[in-house]
Parts: sequence; structure tokens; C-alpha cells
Amino acid sequence: MVDIATRVWNHKWRIDPIVRSLIDDDFYKLLMCQSVRRNRPDAQVTFSLINRTKSIRLADIIDEGELREQLDNVRTLSLTRGESTWLRGNTFYGKRQMFSPDFMEWFEKLRLPAYHLEKRDGQYELTFEGSWPEVMLWEIHALTILMELRSRAVLRDMGRFELQVLYARAMTKVWEKVERLRKVPEIRIADFGTRRRHSFLWQDWCVQALQEGLGASFTGTSNCLIAKNRDLEAIGTNAHELPMIYSALANSDDELAAAPYKVQADWQEEHDGNLRIILPDTYGTEGFLARAPEWLAAWTGIRIDSGDPAEKAEMAIRWWRDRGEDPTTKLVIFSDGLDVDQMLTLQQQFYGRIKVSFGWGTMLTNDFIGLVPGDRLAPFSLVVKAASVNGRPTVKLSDNPEKAMGPADEVARYKRVFGVGDQQRFAVKV
Amino acid sequence: MVDIATRVWNHKWRIDPIVRSLIDDDFYKLLMCQSVRRNRPDAQVTFSLINRTKSIRLADIIDEGELREQLDNVRTLSLTRGESTWLRGNTFYGKRQMFSPDFMEWFEKLRLPAYHLEKRDGQYELTFEGSWPEVMLWEIHALTILMELRSRAVLRDMGRFELQVLYARAMTKVWEKVERLRKVPEIRIADFGTRRRHSFLWQDWCVQALQEGLGASFTGTSNCLIAKNRDLEAIGTNAHELPMIYSALANSDDELAAAPYKVQADWQEEHDGNLRIILPDTYGTEGFLARAPEWLAAWTGIRIDSGDPAEKAEMAIRWWRDRGEDPTTKLVIFSDGLDVDQMLTLQQQFYGRIKVSFGWGTMLTNDFIGLVPGDRLAPFSLVVKAASVNGRPTVKLSDNPEKAMGPADEVARYKRVFGVGDQQRFAVKV
Repeated sequence: MVDIATRVWNHKWRIDPIVRSLIDDDFYKLLMCQSVRRNRPDAQVTFSLINRTKSIRLADIIDEGELREQLDNVRTLSLTRGESTWLRGNTFYGKRQMFSPDFMEWFEKLRLPAYHLEKRDGQYELTFEGSWPEVMLWEIHALTILMELRSRAVLRDMGRFELQVLYARAMTKVWEKVERLRKVPEIRIADFGTRRRHSFLWQDWCVQALQEGLGASFTGTSNCLIAKNRDLEAIGTNAHELPMIYSALANSDDELAAAPYKVQADWQEEHDGNLRIILPDTYGTEGFLARAPEWLAAWTGIRIDSGDPAEKAEMAIRWWRDRGEDPTTKLVIFSDGLDVDQMLTLQQQFYGRIKVSFGWGTMLTNDFIGLVPGDRLAPFSLVVKAASVNGRPTVKLSDNPEKAMGPADEVARYKRVFGVGDQQRFAVKV
Repeated sequence: MVDIATRVWNHKWRIDPIVRSLIDDDFYKLLMCQSVRRNRPDAQVTFSLINRTKSIRLADIIDEGELREQLDNVRTLSLTRGESTWLRGNTFYGKRQMFSPDFMEWFEKLRLPAYHLEKRDGQYELTFEGSWPEVMLWEIHALTILMELRSRAVLRDMGRFELQVLYARAMTKVWEKVERLRKVPEIRIADFGTRRRHSFLWQDWCVQALQEGLGASFTGTSNCLIAKNRDLEAIGTNAHELPMIYSALANSDDELAAAPYKVQADWQEEHDGNLRIILPDTYGTEGFLARAPEWLAAWTGIRIDSGDPAEKAEMAIRWWRDRGEDPTTKLVIFSDGLDVDQMLTLQQQFYGRIKVSFGWGTMLTNDFIGLVPGDRLAPFSLVVKAASVNGRPTVKLSDNPEKAMGPADEVARYKRVFGVGDQQRFAVKV
């Protein structure tokens, strides 16, 4: 068991790398990377940092020199022998050799490409430009570095015992959540908290707490390094960047309308079973399901990442029934800003009607809300998104306009093509 | 910083000595031991364990074999070179060579004498018989062993993360107390929590939390080992065993009436300054002060260890005024079952009128109340007391009949000799 407070204390007087491994990354980034190398290896993509919480002026809080040191450090990392062995030899979702020898040889040689960093209006402009399979691997590292540098900036002013008590309080919060969740033995929860974690050690602690506290209800972690170190299942499938980039590459409205299904078709060629999870909300869940090809209904399940989760799950249930599928055999993964109350409500509403599963993120690995004066450790909404490909802007509509992205004219075009009308707004907290 | 949860976890599979040093002891035991060797070296005393909290059946909770192992281990200990150097070379209360070379030579050779252990009615009968200076040094070690074995028995059934969260919660409790106390910068508090501590590591953590949290308001610890390791002031003066044994040795009622003052006279020959602290309640504070010799009013202060503390402090103030002393120059040490509310109330009532000081014990080092189901870690009232000397029973009346000790006929005689009538009862919690 690591004494987190001591470690944080030690960080105060020497540089301590935040990212120490290229597989301190979400599993789905690696799955997608392999897919992208196969299907769209030449796409030139720009990923950009977006801080949706403007009130947090990151460039005032985080020293630019420290940020550069941490980013530069990631560029020195390469896959270690043990990491490669784990990726090559491990069984993921019951399947061996999930990663092809070709992909592994490429990954073993990979060093992350350059970044571009500027300060503007109290925020950092951080972008990564290059071939899609390479730059996409910056996303999680950039996020975890910024999140942890922000944590460190706040912790720097605290005394040694103040620190220990801070972590004691945070641990108590997590454990009280675990104690509520363990009362529902049928619940299934995975850690999806890498990108918004308070720190690496804290995520590692939270994962271990779930291991002990939830037992079989804890299904694994999205973080490959922690999965490897703690002998857990690595969890994840795919994300919005696939339909966003496929769509931006479309050369006509017809191609655009077909692009999200092309993503699914490519994915279906590569994966089966639990990896066949639909992420339907990029351009509106309702239209996506309505226009989906027949074969998509046979997929294992769906991930609900925006909008009202209960409404979207009901929508999926209706869709499966309409297509002659039995919803009780289908997996629904809820993953949008969940905390305990919502998980328990959803579990009660849907258990038995579908296979319910939760991807618990920010409120697992970064619930420091209320623990320091001014709430300066509260989580906030930081993302790294694919902003453009081959010079064309990407667009995301989502089931929540607060999560939408892209230039206004392109957003209007996508709304027209995908038949998205007025949408309900939901506050994006984390 | 020690990871306490890991240590407790490790304790589950191998023997881990609870007492690892002969100076893991209250400072006043060593001061009294030196005094006893000088003044009453031949007294044959029996110390006995008394569990005032009968509902806690220690013999059912603590394994006899484990208890014997821990007690046997104490008998293997001797003063280490570093400990001896610290006792010989340190300045206590601004004075060097508090311990004479003669005492130190004896202490360096000392091994603790045999103990006698039996089970009866779910409780342990544990006694120590022998020459006073030797057997008196068992008191604290016997208490800390029993307290910690009881903690371990409860902790044994807990999971690794449950343990860590338990300590996280306990730390949070202590720190919330510290945060309340630090708002009163004039307050003066010492750790008196050795005898009833949850465990050694926990006491050590609490002391460090007070160091950081209270700064100059934290005046030191009664525990010599922790004072040595943490470079703190060792705090303490004398206890009830001196008047109890002096009194039991008296051969007449007149000698008995004089015995408590003989204790003070012997002490005055040995010590000055902050060590001249009156402990007036052994046979009733009111009568003790009323009949005290003139020179006693010139002592530095008084320790209030039973009864209503505010009432006793007012009594001391009146007494000093009557004897022509200025109470604002006098130190009053409150030490009876204190927690934050009471300390803050007493501080407000007496600050400026006297020099206020607090000896914070059980509720500092063992406030695990409410942290486990059934409150099986809550502190309880365990003492080791001098029960007889040279075959004669000892008697304590106290300012609280719940803390009284001794055979009924002897109690009646002491009440007559010391003019103690009806007394108010106060619940003894800890």
C-alpha cells in the first residue's frame, strides 16, 4: 500500500514524472489505435485540449515549465519489455492476441510526436498534429498530466499532516461510496477514471479499494498499466473520435450519413463479443439507431455517454425489441458523469431488463469536492479532442448540446444530415 | 510517515511486539521511580490490573497466549544505549541531569520482574509483585499491551482497505479536533495518551498531527520514546501511587493524615520549577488544600484529575488567594478524560486568571468511537493500580467515588481521617 501523502510531499522538491509508462493509458485508445492503423493510417489529425470549465484558469495555476517537463518526459517513454509481453500475451475479453504482431512491432518502436503549447487568456492551447495513430495516443497522457499538475499546484501549499488528512478524507469518501454499492451484489462497475484522475497513485488506490470492497462486482479498469500491475481485466471498446474523424473525411452528405456505420462495419471486422459495443450518440442516438443497418442490432450492447441515461436505455430497449432482439441478453454500459446515486437508480430501473454495467470515472478517481477551501481540488471538465483531419474540422453533436463541438456551419450541416432537431441541455460537471 | 494500515495488516500473520522499548513509558513513571528508589526503595508493592468497564470481557477478546507473549517480550527489554544517552543528556523542564547517575546505572541493568496472570469471569487478573521501583514500571506497559491487543483482536477480521479507511476516518476525527483547537492560539496542550492508546503507531501519528497542527500550542508528550524520536519535550510530574503507598505505609491515623504531605516534602527536595505540581485529589482536594502546609502554596501549580474540573480550579484559585499567592502566576493542568469541547470551555473560563494547560489523553489517542460496528474499538476504562504495600491494602478516595479504590473498612477509615463526606459522582468514561 503506497503512502500517498508522503509521495505528494516528496513531489514538492523534485521532479516526479506523472506519466511513467505508455500503457498508463485507456485500453480503448490502444484498441482504436490498432483499428486506425489498419483503416485510416494516413489521416493527418489535430488533437486539441479543451477546458470546458473556463473559470479554472489553468495557465495561471500550472507553471509552463513544469508542464513542458512533463510533456517532454512522455516523449522519452517507449514500451517496456514487460508491457509488450503483457499486451502480446494477455487475454482480453477472453481472447488472445487481441493486438496483432504488426501493431505490436509498431507500438514497440513508437515515440510520441511533438506537441505545440501556447498560453492564451489564462488557458493553455495544447495541440498535437500528425498521423492519427500517433497523435491519438497523446490524449490521455495530456489529460492526466494537466489534471495532476493542477492537483500538485493546490497541494503545494499544504502541510504534511494536512496532506495526510486530506487523503484520509478522500479515502473515506470513496469507501462510503463502496459501502453503498456493495449492498447491491448484482451491480457491475468498472473504473473509467484515468482521464480525470486526481493523480496516478490516487487512481491506483481507488482501483484497489474497489477490488477489496466490491469483489466480483468490480469488473476491471480502463487503465492498462493498473490492469497489468493489479492483475485486473482491462476494459474498454471505442470512443467518439472514430465517427468524428470518419465523418470529417466524408466527401459528400451521403458519405457523411454513412460514415458512423462505416466505423461500426470496420470494428465488426476486427472484433466480436464484448468488444461489439455501439457508441450511438456522436450525432444523436435516436437517428443513429433508427437508420442503423440490421446487423448492428446483433451487437453485444451499447454505451450511453450523454443525455438522460434512463431515456437512452429505454430507447435502446425499444430498438432491440423492434429488431427482434432480446434486450435481457444485451449489455448497456452507462458512462456519463456517474456517481453512486445515479448508478443505484439506474441499476434498480434496469436490472433484469438488460445487462447493466457502469463505467465509473471522475467521481470515482477525483471526488475531492469539498475537501479544501475554495474547492480548489474539485474536478473540472477537461478534454482532448480530435479537432480536425486533413484540414477539415470535426463535428460532434452528442445527445447534449453542452458537449457539442465544431464550427457553427458544419454543426448545422451535420444536424441536417443526421436529422437532429432541438436537444435537451444537461450541465456537464465532469 | 508510517503507513499504519499496512502495519496493522502485517500484524495479522506474525508476532509483532507492542512494547519495543522500556522508555515507551510515561515520563512521570521514571521521575517517580527515581524518587521511590531514594525514599521508599524497600516497599514491597502489588500492582493489579482493573478493568472498570466490566461489559468488555477482555479474557474472551484477547488470547491468553498472545498476551503472555507480549508480557514476556517486555521482560526481555533493557535500556538501549541511545535511550540511556537521551535520559542522561537531555534537558527536562530546562534542567539537565534530571536523572542521577545512580538511578541511570540501576535503570540500565533493570529487567522487569515476573507477572502473575489468571483468567476469571471473562477478565484477566494480572498482578505484579515486588520492590516498588521495579514493579511500578509495569503499569504503562501492561496497559498499552492490553489496549493494543484488544485493538488487534477487533482489526483482525477487517479487510486491507477497510483497515485503511478505518484509519482514514480516525485521522479525520483527530484532525477535525486539531482544527477546532488551533483557532485558540493561547491554548496549551500536551499528549497524555500513552496508557489508553489505540496502538503505539497511532499515538505516534497523533503526536505528529498535534506538532504540525497546533505548533507552539502543543507543549509535548508524556511518552519518553516518542519525545525522544520526535525531539519533543517529555511531560509529566507525579501520580496517585505516591500518596497511596505512603499512606498505606502509615502506622497510625496521625501518620496517615500526614502521609500525603510527606510525599510533597520528598518531592520538593528533589524537584523545583515546573515539576512542583500538586496532585491534590487522592483523598479529597478540599481537605488536602485546607490542611496543606504553607510552603505548598508556593508550588508552581496543580493537576486536576477528578471531580468537576471548573469547580476544582476555582477551589485552587481561592486557596492560592487565601495563602497570599497570585493565581495568574500558577499553572493548572487539567487531565481528567478531556476532549475538545471541555478544553475549549475551560480555556475560556480560566484563561488569564491562571496559566491553563491540558493533558489530553484517551480522547486524543483512542477516539475510535463510532468507527466500527458495535463500537468494538471504543476506548474503555482500564487501569493498573498499586493495590497493596507490605501486605496492607491501599486506598484512593478521589474527588469522584467512581474512581475510589480499597476495602470498605479502610475506605471508611480514610474518609474519617481525611474528613471526606458525601461526594458527587461523575461517570468514568475513559
